[in-house]
Amino acid sequence: MTHKIAVLPGDGIGTEIVAEAVKVLNVLELPLEMETAPVGGAAYEVAGHPLPESTLKLAQDSDAILFGAVGDWKYDTLERRLRPEQAILGLRKALGLFANFRPAICYEQLVGASSLKPELIAGLDILIIRELTGDIYFGQPRGRRVATDGHFPGAEEAFDTMRYSRPEIERIAHVAFQAARKRSKKVTSVDKANVLETFQFWKDVVTEVHQQYPDVELEHMYVDNAAMQLVKAPKKFDVLFTGNMFGDILSDEAAMLTGSIGMLPSASLNANGQGLYEPSHGSAPDIAGKGVANPLATILSAAMMLRFSLNQPEAADRIESAVRAVLAAGLRTPDIWSEGTTRVGTREMGDAVVAAI
Amino acid sequence: MTHKIAVLPGDGIGTEIVAEAVKVLNVLELPLEMETAPVGGAAYEVAGHPLPESTLKLAQDSDAILFGAVGDWKYDTLERRLRPEQAILGLRKALGLFANFRPAICYEQLVGASSLKPELIAGLDILIIRELTGDIYFGQPRGRRVATDGHFPGAEEAFDTMRYSRPEIERIAHVAFQAARKRSKKVTSVDKANVLETFQFWKDVVTEVHQQYPDVELEHMYVDNAAMQLVKAPKKFDVLFTGNMFGDILSDEAAMLTGSIGMLPSASLNANGQGLYEPSHGSAPDIAGKGVANPLATILSAAMMLRFSLNQPEAADRIESAVRAVLAAGLRTPDIWSEGTTRVGTREMGDAVVAAI
Ligand SMILES: CC(C)[C@H](C(=O)O)[C@@H](O)C(=O)O
Ligand SMILES: CC(C)[C@H](C(=O)O)[C@@H](O)C(=O)O
Repeated sequence: MTHKIAVLPGDGIGTEIVAEAVKVLNVLELPLEMETAPVGGAAYEVAGHPLPESTLKLAQDSDAILFGAVGDWKYDTLERRLRPEQAILGLRKALGLFANFRPAICYEQLVGASSLKPELIAGLDILIIRELTGDIYFGQPRGRRVATDGHFPGAEEAFDTMRYSRPEIERIAHVAFQAARKRSKKVTSVDKANVLETFQFWKDVVTEVHQQYPDVELEHMYVDNAAMQLVKAPKKFDVLFTGNMFGDILSDEAAMLTGSIGMLPSASLNANGQGLYEPSHGSAPDIAGKGVANPLATILSAAMMLRFSLNQPEAADRIESAVRAVLAAGLRTPDIWSEGTTRVGTREMGDAVVAAI
Repeated sequence: MTHKIAVLPGDGIGTEIVAEAVKVLNVLELPLEMETAPVGGAAYEVAGHPLPESTLKLAQDSDAILFGAVGDWKYDTLERRLRPEQAILGLRKALGLFANFRPAICYEQLVGASSLKPELIAGLDILIIRELTGDIYFGQPRGRRVATDGHFPGAEEAFDTMRYSRPEIERIAHVAFQAARKRSKKVTSVDKANVLETFQFWKDVVTEVHQQYPDVELEHMYVDNAAMQLVKAPKKFDVLFTGNMFGDILSDEAAMLTGSIGMLPSASLNANGQGLYEPSHGSAPDIAGKGVANPLATILSAAMMLRFSLNQPEAADRIESAVRAVLAAGLRTPDIWSEGTTRVGTREMGDAVVAAI
């Protein structure tokens, strides 16, 4: 059975890093059919929309999406619905990609790249699970209007709606508890139940779902405290799971704590196992086209794709081992380079992973 | 003219740390009239409500409020409106304390207490300005209902409303730009304009207000990126200002980066200069009553009170110099203790500040 993969390189360094991941996938000689389409600013340029119908259709018809990155300063002045990042929001919504997995791992050889003291970060391995299709990201109503109450009735105001329904919380809670069963059986659910109705409900529903997982330890933590504990003692976390908005902030904070965000993959899955796989970092327009971007996060995202959407765990293992091997051999792109290691470019790094496979 | 100060010690370590700040204020021999009232869990115990009418009235009738901390696990099961933290939300709302100042400073002698490598944190001096009476904290409507649209129509859901009106954004923007003029004239406004209507509006209004401050440099940053940049290069920030929800998260993250949250004061002001002054840390029920809590954040909050609400800048300077002197003399409460320094308790630390004054 051939698996169909939509390859969406996007903007900035997207093209370069996705090319390396495709190269790595090709060398595995699996029955994969890959088709490329434009997305983000690149799609706006050719089709006048960041997520053209044809790209969306390709994504919908594929088993998985290998995504690069979108965004560039030059689109900042476009109206919001035409901006590159709308493509990623549109894909999440259209495909129902509610479960976002963002590992924050500190590789042994890259401990020095972290802002944190080595003893606090060495061996870090957190799995952040972020709900990705609900919350204030998609809640209606939203917009601008004249305020009828509040501090300044009569004034112009803008507003958004935060919301979570019971089944939305239940399904992501199951994902988190099941993921924890394959790890150290500890889940931290992050909320702001002391202030928000939405997150008091979140906490209540998570507590209920937890009854079905008596073997998993559940801890509730306020988001402000989580932002602190990540800095103070990140290794105390194992599976950290939360809503869309808080997950956006905490997953980036945790990624940066590792010091090597250029190494971190991500997966966004729907209920059918279809998934979008992309690096945790962005499109980095400042270094685009220079051949210096780190392709490893994208290559590791391809590994996650093989494991989660294509049922090819051995192939995923081969990629991950190869990445560890090139790190052990001392190869480093500029973002993770340090004294005594060998500086390489995007393509050389991809070639090295291919060679190690 | 006598200044009236409401002293609200609250729960946990609140009583101990506030006692030291009062001692320090007393030694200054200023015309201050201090009156104490219960708040938080302590008020619930005696009056059945975390913010009794009498406490609120005292606060309203005072020039400033010296606040300890509220909260204890034992109140977790109370219905939300009776929980200790409702007192602080209630005070903010009733007094209109919209401008929250939270400095994140790394004291020279305490660099080692940070999770971050010394070179990244030494000399850190960020002023976080958080809007404190708007956003999703107070927006209506909020509650539980049956969903009529979204992913699961018909399901039970909870929701909250995020909102900001133009004058709310304008007044906090003025506060931020004016604060920046007294510092290095650089403001970072943190938003999530790429997703939220509220924060696109925030960004638009801040940009407009900025026209009146051509001498101040304004930078816009997404909240997820801000959470990362704080970890990566905190010293790049000077004045960071943002809404209530994002400010809650980022100010705690920044405070913890310094490694010495026990040292960080805060001020929450309204349009009349009335203010609530409290340490950035919480009630720490685990160490309450042991005489080991660090009173310096509360003592420094008292200094902020003298400067911002009571127009006594020299007295504020005297307190701040005294705190620097006791640190230089090597005195440390357990939270900031390190090899080679002298471990002291709450009371000894307060006495040392008094002596240094
Ligand atoms: C680009 C933006 C809309 C997006 C988000 O906020 O979800 C990004 O920050 C992410 O985390 O994937
Ligand atoms: C106790 C809580 C309601 C409060 C908040 O979220 O504002 C606290 O975290 C703070 O930052 O003062």
